[in-house]
Amino acid sequence: MKKFFNPQSIAIIGASKDFTSISGKPIKYLLSHGYEGNIYPVNPKYKEIGSLKCYPGITEIPGEVDMALIAINYRRVLQVLEDCHKKGVKYAAIFSSGFAEVGEEGKQLQQQIIELAKRTGLRVLGPNCQGLVNLPNKIAAGFSASLENKPLVSGKTGFVTQSGALGYSIFNLAQEMGVGFSYIVSTGNEVDIHSLELLQYMVEDDNTDLLVAYLEGIKDGKLFAQVTTRALELGKPIVALKVGRSDVGQKAASSHTASLTGSDKVADAFFKQNGVIRVDDIQDITDIAGLYGRIALPKGKGLGIVTTSGGAGILAVDTAIEVGLEVPELSEQTKDRIGEVIPDYGSAMNPVDVTAQVINDPEGFMNVLDAMLDNPGIDALVIVVTMIYGAAGERLARDIVDISKRASKPIALCWTAGDRLMENCFAVLRRGEVPYFKSPVRCVKAVGSLMNYGAFRNSWLERQKSLSQVSATAQQTEASVEGYLNGCGIRLTEHQGKELLAKYHIPVTEEAVASSEEEAAAIGRRIGYPLAVKVDSPDIMHKTEAGALKLFIKNEHELREAFNQVLANSKAYKPGARINGALVQEMVQDGTEVIVGINNDPQFGPVVVFGLGGIFVELLKDVSMRVAPFGYEEALDMIKEIKGYGVLAGARGQARKDISALAEVLVRVSEMAVQLEEEIQELDINPLLVLDEGKGVKVADALVIRKGSSK
Amino acid sequence: MKKFFNPQSIAIIGASKDFTSISGKPIKYLLSHGYEGNIYPVNPKYKEIGSLKCYPGITEIPGEVDMALIAINYRRVLQVLEDCHKKGVKYAAIFSSGFAEVGEEGKQLQQQIIELAKRTGLRVLGPNCQGLVNLPNKIAAGFSASLENKPLVSGKTGFVTQSGALGYSIFNLAQEMGVGFSYIVSTGNEVDIHSLELLQYMVEDDNTDLLVAYLEGIKDGKLFAQVTTRALELGKPIVALKVGRSDVGQKAASSHTASLTGSDKVADAFFKQNGVIRVDDIQDITDIAGLYGRIALPKGKGLGIVTTSGGAGILAVDTAIEVGLEVPELSEQTKDRIGEVIPDYGSAMNPVDVTAQVINDPEGFMNVLDAMLDNPGIDALVIVVTMIYGAAGERLARDIVDISKRASKPIALCWTAGDRLMENCFAVLRRGEVPYFKSPVRCVKAVGSLMNYGAFRNSWLERQKSLSQVSATAQQTEASVEGYLNGCGIRLTEHQGKELLAKYHIPVTEEAVASSEEEAAAIGRRIGYPLAVKVDSPDIMHKTEAGALKLFIKNEHELREAFNQVLANSKAYKPGARINGALVQEMVQDGTEVIVGINNDPQFGPVVVFGLGGIFVELLKDVSMRVAPFGYEEALDMIKEIKGYGVLAGARGQARKDISALAEVLVRVSEMAVQLEEEIQELDINPLLVLDEGKGVKVADALVIRKGSSK
Repeated sequence: MKKFFNPQSIAIIGASKDFTSISGKPIKYLLSHGYEGNIYPVNPKYKEIGSLKCYPGITEIPGEVDMALIAINYRRVLQVLEDCHKKGVKYAAIFSSGFAEVGEEGKQLQQQIIELAKRTGLRVLGPNCQGLVNLPNKIAAGFSASLENKPLVSGKTGFVTQSGALGYSIFNLAQEMGVGFSYIVSTGNEVDIHSLELLQYMVEDDNTDLLVAYLEGIKDGKLFAQVTTRALELGKPIVALKVGRSDVGQKAASSHTASLTGSDKVADAFFKQNGVIRVDDIQDITDIAGLYGRIALPKGKGLGIVTTSGGAGILAVDTAIEVGLEVPELSEQTKDRIGEVIPDYGSAMNPVDVTAQVINDPEGFMNVLDAMLDNPGIDALVIVVTMIYGAAGERLARDIVDISKRASKPIALCWTAGDRLMENCFAVLRRGEVPYFKSPVRCVKAVGSLMNYGAFRNSWLERQKSLSQVSATAQQTEASVEGYLNGCGIRLTEHQGKELLAKYHIPVTEEAVASSEEEAAAIGRRIGYPLAVKVDSPDIMHKTEAGALKLFIKNEHELREAFNQVLANSKAYKPGARINGALVQEMVQDGTEVIVGINNDPQFGPVVVFGLGGIFVELLKDVSMRVAPFGYEEALDMIKEIKGYGVLAGARGQARKDISALAEVLVRVSEMAVQLEEEIQELDINPLLVLDEGKGVKVADALVIRKGSSK
Repeated sequence: MKKFFNPQSIAIIGASKDFTSISGKPIKYLLSHGYEGNIYPVNPKYKEIGSLKCYPGITEIPGEVDMALIAINYRRVLQVLEDCHKKGVKYAAIFSSGFAEVGEEGKQLQQQIIELAKRTGLRVLGPNCQGLVNLPNKIAAGFSASLENKPLVSGKTGFVTQSGALGYSIFNLAQEMGVGFSYIVSTGNEVDIHSLELLQYMVEDDNTDLLVAYLEGIKDGKLFAQVTTRALELGKPIVALKVGRSDVGQKAASSHTASLTGSDKVADAFFKQNGVIRVDDIQDITDIAGLYGRIALPKGKGLGIVTTSGGAGILAVDTAIEVGLEVPELSEQTKDRIGEVIPDYGSAMNPVDVTAQVINDPEGFMNVLDAMLDNPGIDALVIVVTMIYGAAGERLARDIVDISKRASKPIALCWTAGDRLMENCFAVLRRGEVPYFKSPVRCVKAVGSLMNYGAFRNSWLERQKSLSQVSATAQQTEASVEGYLNGCGIRLTEHQGKELLAKYHIPVTEEAVASSEEEAAAIGRRIGYPLAVKVDSPDIMHKTEAGALKLFIKNEHELREAFNQVLANSKAYKPGARINGALVQEMVQDGTEVIVGINNDPQFGPVVVFGLGGIFVELLKDVSMRVAPFGYEEALDMIKEIKGYGVLAGARGQARKDISALAEVLVRVSEMAVQLEEEIQELDINPLLVLDEGKGVKVADALVIRKGSSK
């Protein structure tokens, strides 16, 4: 995609002399921002546009054309694309709208574009997009009015947006705040080139160290996972504004866990497990990008706060705690150093309130900042200034510029005051390239995003090691499973489901299928009592209803009776049902019931869902989920994330349950989910019994549905 | 307090010629903002300051002095206050710091000020405050640098702040955004005049129609309730930025429900039940105040959204749903009218995406807005504009100004673009007095706050009627209770607790205390089996441990045996315990266990706490609470608010429980809580059994602790 981001020559199809029109603006913007490649306007109506020669058709252009910008009536787009292909154009960006977004005719045209792109290899951006801008290389190949501003501010934030109008608005706001970008690309209807492909390029690109995406849909969760993996390896944060949160739960799904797996929830789980910074508002993008352009990535979650207003300090602390940061207590040494500056305070606390004292004692203020920066456990410092004005304000601004330059830890500044009054102070900050916020809340949230990301990345790097080890073990299983599944129906029986799970070293109840009373008795002797007896049949779903389930069988006499009853009841309930026999199974009487499931998400592939049994899942929707595969530590996070975690951890005087065995099962299920993605439609372990700590877990029942159930 | 807000003469004690100092600035600001009363600098060092005569002491001032501003060393404040009293000064605002906020000496001085204020009737603001500004009457009696801006923007927002530095910073930010204020008062350490008293004045004040408070602590919940009640009656929203959220749960409390009643949670409940708009960030204050200065209060929660960007529309919808608004479907008529403007779209949806079409068809855009405004169920309209620029943008701005003036429903505008590029468009909006946001999220949140408030106020006005009726019934109970409680110990026995509840018409288990085996048998015959038998003793807390509790007694034989065992076990367990006999009690075997408690909050008084029994309260902390008293509808809200509500509503195929009987109990408990506030320290009904719908509720056990347990 390097040439896509760096076209050496650009043709504008349907070029207009009216530089306020969609087909005139790109010429204006390419010229005004200093594009150094060849610009070829194409329009049979004109000989030239401004100083540029204008061509009647794209095939008439003498030189090579890397990219064509297409801003003509949607009905003529397809023909132009054919011409582009003839000419050997590599990339076409279609600005025209009138495609899938408006109706049936547009949908068909869009489909034809898709086919053309596949057939010819011409890479297409859009349609209904607003083009791209490469700021370091001065390529403004778009028509957004945001390109009226000159000069554009180059920087290291790469931005991909599925909404051109909103995306370029964000870009414009950010630019006017001084936030620099490497690229902005609007992808429109994404018939060919899509957001993830662009992010994939940007993550490897030296011009980009922060990736921002505005997303409405995620086409390919696996590609996204590749991107996030590389981004974590390289330490480039990804910020995502993903909309459509309120669509959750709109799609009905047949299975139990599926009904809890709204796709936005899956996206949220994916973001969480891959360190993507999910934001809710456009201002979060400008806040984070503005800050990360100037500070290094914090190494952990410990936040120090120094403020000229006690109130602002409390607000900052509230926010820090809310977003999951730590506000560590200060070491004795730090307290002593601060105490020298503000002796009236019995004990220096984090946040440190230096009050308006800073006006009278600017050096003392600097000593406080240095002391805080030296305090172990503080990974970043937030400074909140209120109405420090005039000469004192300007001195303060200069001091903050100085310390920001020399500090070994990141500093984020909030200066809660208006631009008019603080003009001189803010000018000092801008000259010193120190970003500043107006709201303590937004300041802490922005630096907090980076702190949480930094901490996540550290533990992610650790976790990668264990993940690859576990995966190796699971790899051996795959082969033996394929043959097994071929012998099963679409819907596996409970026993088959458990055999499958056992192949992945997931502990299941001890059990066997008996085809005769004698066989049942023998199994009973082997397993020991109490036992359960259930019909083993692919055709009987509701065993209780069928009378095909007997529990708490205490001895061989009861077992024989149960065997015969279960089979007789089953035959009576559903004559003609295929009956393999009766499943004789150990009764696990202790243990906390949990549910573990696999759902196949259309965007992200297999997703593992976990929750406690009973009201927790059914009533409280208290589930956690992760896109498969994942490792042991992630599984532990997943377990701890549910609200009912205390039930497993030993709340209310109960024994602690075997959480590590449970985490192991989640990991194995996640690996199984990936290996059998093409085989398995759905898995529902319900319940998995989690025994007391050290005693393991056991699958008591499992439902597996293979793919192909539609045939 | 009218004269406090409108002093006719102001003395500045310790007045300085240095107009950059704390004791010089108030003179400068009073003069520069056009104060029309008398200004009396007081300082023995000077004969005059500028053109003003300066007095050696306050008693030397010839005329009356309404207010003294005190900005001298804290050690001299007390003497000056005495002088003020001598002079007959009505109000003193102490700017000096060095009091309770710094250490022991300061605390003692502060205590002396409190005593002086009480003794003399001199009303004191501060210390450690930044004074007050009355904008309509041009009284700038403060020293904040925010008063450097000229002119100050007068408006109808009254602002009280417990943090001077942060409060005046917010004021400054808001002023520079054009948000007008009636007053800002900084209350500092609040030794005398406190925030709620000032809000109480402002709520009745014609200059103020929106109240804003920055709060760290709430001194008097009852006064606050009076203020919120008046504010609701008058339709003046109160916006509160209350900090200290992360302190929740820091104070340990002895009783079960108390451990869940962190004071911030109580404040939150109070805000919710009294329609106070709680915000998290300073920008929410400027957003809401800026908007409410220009639009009328929306009548309900139905939001219409019209946008030039599909992406921005989704973002707006997500936010609307998140904050509890409705985004209603459009009527056929509205769809038809919109369809005439944007025919390409099969069906017009809310949000309406008009795309950049608006540039080509400005009249059509206006028709869309009109159609949306006419749609029933839409109570307010949000317009989101992205990069509409130049002449088209200016026309759009003019059109929006026009429709905002003539529309019968409130309109909030978001224009997501930078100031530099949109200068001309935004100038049109400012001239037209149309507020605009940059972020769709903030825009929807701000108008959503007002919509939620409007809807709340409507239902609150309805609820007031039923509340006063119920209260009348309860009033009769009070007298009969006083005598009863005098006969009880500090800790009521279970039976006494239930007798007390029964006086408030709260259903309790049928039961009686038997002092002999024969008496027990007679009670058994009257109540019927099964029964429970428990020791009735104020000295035995842990009945199970003592063997003083027998359940599921099926017949008289078992009852006699249980009676004797319980008494024998009790005596053995705790020799010398006072034993009244054995409580013979019906066994209620059905019903869902819930917990209802009363906690006395130091700020808000009695708080009723509700939750489901078992894991819900203990593990999930799933409780709701309301400050007492409250009415039936509020009680229903309280029940529906808990996450486990489905358990009562009939989840998982269970019968629906008697929610209305439960709500009645909550109302009665809330009335009892208020009536017995001075008598009862703590009430814990655990469990209250909620039977199937129509079958009522029953208190199965109750713990009541009277006040005075410390003696």
